[in-house]
Amino acid sequence: MKKSMGAKTMILPTPVLIVGTYDVAGKPNVMTVAWGGVCCSEPPCIAISLRRATYTYWNIVEKKAFTVHIAVESYLKEADYFGIISGKKVDKFTATGLTPVRAEFVDAPYIKEFPLVFECKLLHTAEIGLHTQFIGEIVDTKIDEDMLTDDGFPAIEKMKPVAFAPGIRDYYSFGKVLGKAFSIGKQIGKEAT
Amino acid sequence: MKKSMGAKTMILPTPVLIVGTYDVAGKPNVMTVAWGGVCCSEPPCIAISLRRATYTYWNIVEKKAFTVHIAVESYLKEADYFGIISGKKVDKFTATGLTPVRAEFVDAPYIKEFPLVFECKLLHTAEIGLHTQFIGEIVDTKIDEDMLTDDGFPAIEKMKPVAFAPGIRDYYSFGKVLGKAFSIGKQIGKEAT
Repeated sequence: MKKSMGAKTMILPTPVLIVGTYDVAGKPNVMTVAWGGVCCSEPPCIAISLRRATYTYWNIVEKKAFTVHIAVESYLKEADYFGIISGKKVDKFTATGLTPVRAEFVDAPYIKEFPLVFECKLLHTAEIGLHTQFIGEIVDTKIDEDMLTDDGFPAIEKMKPVAFAPGIRDYYSFGKVLGKAFSIGKQIGKEAT
Repeated sequence: MKKSMGAKTMILPTPVLIVGTYDVAGKPNVMTVAWGGVCCSEPPCIAISLRRATYTYWNIVEKKAFTVHIAVESYLKEADYFGIISGKKVDKFTATGLTPVRAEFVDAPYIKEFPLVFECKLLHTAEIGLHTQFIGEIVDTKIDEDMLTDDGFPAIEKMKPVAFAPGIRDYYSFGKVLGKAFSIGKQIGKEAT
């Protein structure tokens, strides 16, 4: 029996995305957002949603560029911190001891210590309500070489990405592999025909 | 040392979202998408990206409504199947033996057997490129009562949501709880001040 909960934003899993930007003075900042993800394959794009009250919002409006990192277990405390405090008040790189690096293709910084980074240039902005959605075209993806599998994919078991459960507000590790996408469902097609 | 991979759509985790729609004749259909997630808190909204070639695309254009389910381990084979074959060719409910139920507030069907469902009405459409992004306002969330914690949140350990790793195309279970969001990072603030 299903119970109605009203309108809840509890998609599972939700990613933990760290957005890097420069302010007008060139100060690097990072902010953690949960509302975001890939939104197009060609051109490859990432959407992130931000409130106008954030420092990052105005940095993106100004610079039309941002980076996106995924949170990993080894820097989860830092990723959580980036979502708690505003870059208006503190230098988050100084506070955490992490290293800002100028991105190669866009006017935004990335965090050297985070293993997977997407460099994005702003393509489209949509005012939805409390949040504004910025869609950025991915112009490059950078990964720590020791985090690659032999086949050239991110090695999940080494990188240890983090998933978020909104509502209860818990961070989760990735568990076990359950199967291949575009593959395990084929059995049903065969049974049905 | 970071290696450049070019533009890759490899956000980790990526959700596994099953979108429910009716066609013009009222036939229920479901399709699995990976590009999507929450994009606004107020009004609460979910964004999903679809190619124009899909059956679901035209159903949403026509009906201006859709449901979103999350994939769970107990129906992962079915969720994968929904992303492999088009509703133009088969009745996916008949093929899987799952049960379509008319949503309470929008003109779309949901899958009775899936534990968590969001009913959405179309709010905004953005043509990005290969994919079109549909933003739907969540008007209700429905959950199987036995999948709730005592505090009224989705019970992750019972529901067993599934995460997707694009690129390598593996489905993953949720692992262990790593900590509370908006909490575990506070330690850094204290250290820094």
